[in-house]
Amino acid sequence: MNNIKFYEIKKEIRILGIDDASFNLFEDKKTILIGAIFRGGEWLDGVLKTEIEVDGNDATEKIIEMVKNTRHKDLRIIMLDGITFGGFNVVNIKKVFEETGLGVIAVVRKIPDFEEIENVIKRYEYYEERKEGINAAGVPRKIETRKGKFIYIQCCGIKFEDAKYIVKLSSTRSLIPEPIRAAHLIASGVALGESRGGA
Amino acid sequence: MNNIKFYEIKKEIRILGIDDASFNLFEDKKTILIGAIFRGGEWLDGVLKTEIEVDGNDATEKIIEMVKNTRHKDLRIIMLDGITFGGFNVVNIKKVFEETGLGVIAVVRKIPDFEEIENVIKRYEYYEERKEGINAAGVPRKIETRKGKFIYIQCCGIKFEDAKYIVKLSSTRSLIPEPIRAAHLIASGVALGESRGGA
Repeated sequence: MNNIKFYEIKKEIRILGIDDASFNLFEDKKTILIGAIFRGGEWLDGVLKTEIEVDGNDATEKIIEMVKNTRHKDLRIIMLDGITFGGFNVVNIKKVFEETGLGVIAVVRKIPDFEEIENVIKRYEYYEERKEGINAAGVPRKIETRKGKFIYIQCCGIKFEDAKYIVKLSSTRSLIPEPIRAAHLIASGVALGESRGGA
Repeated sequence: MNNIKFYEIKKEIRILGIDDASFNLFEDKKTILIGAIFRGGEWLDGVLKTEIEVDGNDATEKIIEMVKNTRHKDLRIIMLDGITFGGFNVVNIKKVFEETGLGVIAVVRKIPDFEEIENVIKRYEYYEERKEGINAAGVPRKIETRKGKFIYIQCCGIKFEDAKYIVKLSSTRSLIPEPIRAAHLIASGVALGESRGGA
């Protein structure tokens, strides 16, 4: 599939930001994913929830399902807080794009150590799927969201220049896009009783 | 205790908006309360969660506890989506004010039928406490949040004029204050998998 063409990117473009809740690796078999639907970087329009297995392999499919089932048919972009949730449940952003038709942008604060990741995943099940998911995301590319402050993105289904524009447009309150920041606050607040730190 | 004096009400005054999740009256013994911490009507600063008994009498105490335990020490106002949560778990806003020192504003879309409420509560336990909570809230007073559109508020620990100013200031995206609208979206999204309707 080709990249989505944006003839005009509106300030209130509907974005679904996704983050997971923290969990107890020794006790919890599942954790929640929260989707915060935003109008650009401006305001919350809806909240979605799904569950994934801790260290499982169902995050890609659960995200696709959540997006297909929502009543919010005006979503244009999916933003992820990185490509792994619930431990090492890797999201294949290429599959998410192909199944939903939405541009996907994963945001990370620093370049992951790919060698270390390889060392971890090769010792566990789902090696092929995880490797494929990691490869599909490609190399993170730098964006300056505030003067002198950088984040990195991986994207699929959308040109880097468009993704960059949308990330900057939606980072209205902090260094990261509001849909991801809100998803993080909601997921951690619901899991812990009070939200913590940044996404 | 006297009303809180506001020498200046800032646009980014910290407000905690509270709403409950929907529940199944026949199956659920508890439901969740979500607190959305907002800077005025502008943006989400944190998320709190607690649990109350369906048709119980612990909402007042659970809200007080949630406010006392939060790391957000800069809260100034508590806003409630009405004074009953989880069925008929009545919040005594006078007690919440006295225990937290924060002004409390309950927002309703229409004047409740007090006669009908009396008929319901007198048949169940906690009659005295519920009656006291309802009386403590007083008669709802009208506010125009958009031209020709009205909501009603009950308040404690804050002058009606100040409460009115804060409600209007924070109703940035709809007819009701953002902290309550967001708390509703989060509570319903978390409970149902997808948020519904207005608060």
